[in-house]
Amino acid sequence: MERSFKLTVAYDGSDYAGWQIQVGQPTIQGRLERAIAKLTGQRIRITGSWRTDSGVHAIAQVASLTTTAWRAAPDALVRAMNTKLPPDIAVRDCQEMVPGFHAIRDATGKRYRYQMQIGGVRDPLQQRYRLHIPWQLDLAAMQEAARGFVGARDYASFQATGGKTKTTVRHVRELTLREGARRPDGGREVDLEIEANGFLYNMVRNIVGTLWEVGRGKQRPAWVEQVFAARNRDAAGDTAPPQGLFLVKVDYPAPLHLACDAPPRSDASPSDASP
Amino acid sequence: MERSFKLTVAYDGSDYAGWQIQVGQPTIQGRLERAIAKLTGQRIRITGSWRTDSGVHAIAQVASLTTTAWRAAPDALVRAMNTKLPPDIAVRDCQEMVPGFHAIRDATGKRYRYQMQIGGVRDPLQQRYRLHIPWQLDLAAMQEAARGFVGARDYASFQATGGKTKTTVRHVRELTLREGARRPDGGREVDLEIEANGFLYNMVRNIVGTLWEVGRGKQRPAWVEQVFAARNRDAAGDTAPPQGLFLVKVDYPAPLHLACDAPPRSDASPSDASP
Repeated sequence: MERSFKLTVAYDGSDYAGWQIQVGQPTIQGRLERAIAKLTGQRIRITGSWRTDSGVHAIAQVASLTTTAWRAAPDALVRAMNTKLPPDIAVRDCQEMVPGFHAIRDATGKRYRYQMQIGGVRDPLQQRYRLHIPWQLDLAAMQEAARGFVGARDYASFQATGGKTKTTVRHVRELTLREGARRPDGGREVDLEIEANGFLYNMVRNIVGTLWEVGRGKQRPAWVEQVFAARNRDAAGDTAPPQGLFLVKVDYPAPLHLACDAPPRSDASPSDASP
Repeated sequence: MERSFKLTVAYDGSDYAGWQIQVGQPTIQGRLERAIAKLTGQRIRITGSWRTDSGVHAIAQVASLTTTAWRAAPDALVRAMNTKLPPDIAVRDCQEMVPGFHAIRDATGKRYRYQMQIGGVRDPLQQRYRLHIPWQLDLAAMQEAARGFVGARDYASFQATGGKTKTTVRHVRELTLREGARRPDGGREVDLEIEANGFLYNMVRNIVGTLWEVGRGKQRPAWVEQVFAARNRDAAGDTAPPQGLFLVKVDYPAPLHLACDAPPRSDASPSDASP
């Protein structure tokens, strides 16, 4: 019987050429498909909700697969796959979905985080996961500019050049800049979080680069409206580097989960943690 | 004029063969000495307070160097060295010390942390910095056993085989096991912190491995006294893997700091964070 599964996958993207399979390059999708092939003896396509770029990380990327080859419980697939995956990729959770579940088509929203350290000395223990900005940024000005991104807007100026989509309108539900711990070296840790019904290619990194223009005082917060109006990638700021970016969450409608399935692992009993 | 400096260095030890210079191997000391050679044109010895092993990290390793080649302020040495070091090593702070300051000889104490995740699914974003233990451990039993380590005791059983020191007595000032966040997958994050006037080779990792014997229920907390009494490495538990271990702090007597020196960087003004 054909069954459809939703895999929740975490990875450190530093040493990969991104999500999508490329000949001769290590990719997340490639490693996952190799693991499932080892387990089932079949070549099974694994579809990610989003093609994360080289160096981008995921706390909870979602991938779908449809197969007749897996007859055991979804939890057993988590444990089995993790024995076949390298240390920088892990399946966190597996749930059975309605037949034909598709990680791209069925997604209703996504959430990203961009982690930065403003000022201070660069931190070798954070270099993979938090971008160090060696100069000061005006956080209040960035927060003012950030408000302009919330709502349903045309993000054409924030799409990588050459991007092709039917519409460039996206509904950003939330965009926050949160200041965390102040470091002993005077640096500040700041996390940007953004949630939308969908994202254009490079959209988060282009928004971050645009907010930096405001933070550095090169542009005023109101300038963001000019960038939107231009509908031209050149009007926005630079594309921020990938290493601060995390895919945090992908949303799907609850009815796609099979009713007979176990509750999500956040309520899982301690016995799930056995060897 | 000969001047002595105290460097505080942070590093991710994952990709190094440890602190100490070895022919044909990347080491932290090797990278630091190469950086100082580029800056001064001189080969200058940099002495670390401790030879951390391959895969062990440092939040604040301390190293000393004595040179006539550096005439600028200590802060300028921090910035200059960081431009010559790879992303996984950084100098956090530099202070001028009394002439002849020596990072090993003058140290009066050290503090280490060992980070673990007990149970849950292994986390690719923590795999370099937190050891995943896939089974449950009895934290209360480990805490009871941990109390036996505090005080001035003979640590002969916890020294790597072949270790040579005048005395195997060390004074452990503190040994705590702290439970942090409970993870959505049911795993628990636990940090062990230990402070002593000095450590024998592999002592922290051997203590951690010994506490795991108690945590897994193979031994009772009181067994630790038998291990101490044996004065034999074979009596203790296994050596815990390096990747959870961090050198957190090294102490030196305040009078070794030159009185004319700037206050520590924790009080540094934001201008220190300029590009």
